Amino acid sequence: MKIIKNTKEMQDISLRLRAEGKKIGFVPTMGYLHDGHLSLVKRSKELADITVVSIFVNPTQFGVNEDLDSYPRDLEGDCTRLEKFDVDYLFNPDAEDIYPANYHTYVEVETLTENLCGRSRPTHFRGVTTIVSKLFNIVLPHYAIFGQKDVQQCYVIKRMTEDLNLLPQIIINPTVRENDGLAMSSRNKYLTKEERIIAPAIYQSLNTGKEIILKGERNADKIVAVITATLEKYLLFRIDYIDIVDTKNLQKVNEITGDVIIAAAVFLSKARLIDNVIVKI
Amino acid sequence: MKIIKNTKEMQDISLRLRAEGKKIGFVPTMGYLHDGHLSLVKRSKELADITVVSIFVNPTQFGVNEDLDSYPRDLEGDCTRLEKFDVDYLFNPDAEDIYPANYHTYVEVETLTENLCGRSRPTHFRGVTTIVSKLFNIVLPHYAIFGQKDVQQCYVIKRMTEDLNLLPQIIINPTVRENDGLAMSSRNKYLTKEERIIAPAIYQSLNTGKEIILKGERNADKIVAVITATLEKYLLFRIDYIDIVDTKNLQKVNEITGDVIIAAAVFLSKARLIDNVIVKI
Repeated sequence: MKIIKNTKEMQDISLRLRAEGKKIGFVPTMGYLHDGHLSLVKRSKELADITVVSIFVNPTQFGVNEDLDSYPRDLEGDCTRLEKFDVDYLFNPDAEDIYPANYHTYVEVETLTENLCGRSRPTHFRGVTTIVSKLFNIVLPHYAIFGQKDVQQCYVIKRMTEDLNLLPQIIINPTVRENDGLAMSSRNKYLTKEERIIAPAIYQSLNTGKEIILKGERNADKIVAVITATLEKYLLFRIDYIDIVDTKNLQKVNEITGDVIIAAAVFLSKARLIDNVIVKI
Repeated sequence: MKIIKNTKEMQDISLRLRAEGKKIGFVPTMGYLHDGHLSLVKRSKELADITVVSIFVNPTQFGVNEDLDSYPRDLEGDCTRLEKFDVDYLFNPDAEDIYPANYHTYVEVETLTENLCGRSRPTHFRGVTTIVSKLFNIVLPHYAIFGQKDVQQCYVIKRMTEDLNLLPQIIINPTVRENDGLAMSSRNKYLTKEERIIAPAIYQSLNTGKEIILKGERNADKIVAVITATLEKYLLFRIDYIDIVDTKNLQKVNEITGDVIIAAAVFLSKARLIDNVIVKI
């Protein structure tokens, strides 16, 4: 695996690979890789000739009081993991190369970014779309693979890619979970022993909501109330949001009349964990 | 010359040309082509193997009370002109293909877009950067050629291209002028006979300012006052702005200590004409 630091060098490699007719698969990450990330790498290896993984803890997607400084990092461990999967290139740029001193350009997706995580993290998606559009222009992939855990991010990136005529096909992989159902996340590292024990209740409560819908309940408020009550049994949870949204446009629904996503963001001390389930009716 | 309407078809052609090792030169326009545009086409023909010209009157760069509907159009005449220059592809998409109903993504360059034309046309550059980033992603050019008349646009597009790691090298061509000095512009068509006679005073007044600087004057307000007085001799002019800005960052200067641009926007009835001169001291 070749480690590339420089953006121009990475772009030149990608242009050369494309000229050679190679299909490029791309997995953008912030590092501290877990099996969720590695499932995306595996998917890229199946789809493409060449797999590029990026590790960049992107400052513009963190709010001022968020966890940029404490975000877990383990480049050495990440390299070992990626080498086992025969990844071709690790793109690991410095922040100064991505955002030089006179940097001034931002990419923004409207509407889709207003609710769910966008409400509690108002500048988050602008940071995500800016960095992802840059990475797409540098790596020039045929396929870019994202995990369904970050479901709003998946929708926003699909929208941006289509709107800006960016090159890659966006591939969404299912959420990878621990044995007890907790969605894998680099932020699970923040959990204390006690928090880790109760954390799977998030996914369980979403599944409870799903079951209620499948049994016929169509009133979103009632379903959210049940999920909320399930989580509030544990004093350590602080709910950011629990919302039921349309799969077509991520807009909140009151009455369920088609396929929906039940999405939640929950704090356990400093860890803000997100998860979601899709419900097809 | 092949006329391409569909964005996907244009992108596929560009990908194929790149795979064949061809260098692509690109001239984005809003049509109603004059010798200024054609000088850009000529430059592309010199630089690249394949020249793509786009004609698209981009609605998102016009303000609500601006001249989108009356903007001059002459596709047939444009085709004749481009064929004489052996242009390879004319990309002429429909607005519905560029901005479909669920379109939601915008590209914005901060700081550089705040003064000069950005002050009187607050949403203009956001429209320009959005369409140009889209066109760059569709046409995937090695070179993109713009005219110095739109000097702020040139700076903004250079900044965006660098910031978003877009592929083309940005080439700036000198302003092409009528025999009497008036900068060529599709909007000159709006001028009445009387307005057309006095319009060259804009460029003349900028040159007067330039001469004053070259003779040693360094106070920007004094120079702007002379230019303003020159133009105010003609009752038909309505000055939008006359500013002296630093060539490094387009920021307004009070005291001239390095190379500057004198830039002006002036209304003659509904025609808003812009022009600028660079002054190297």
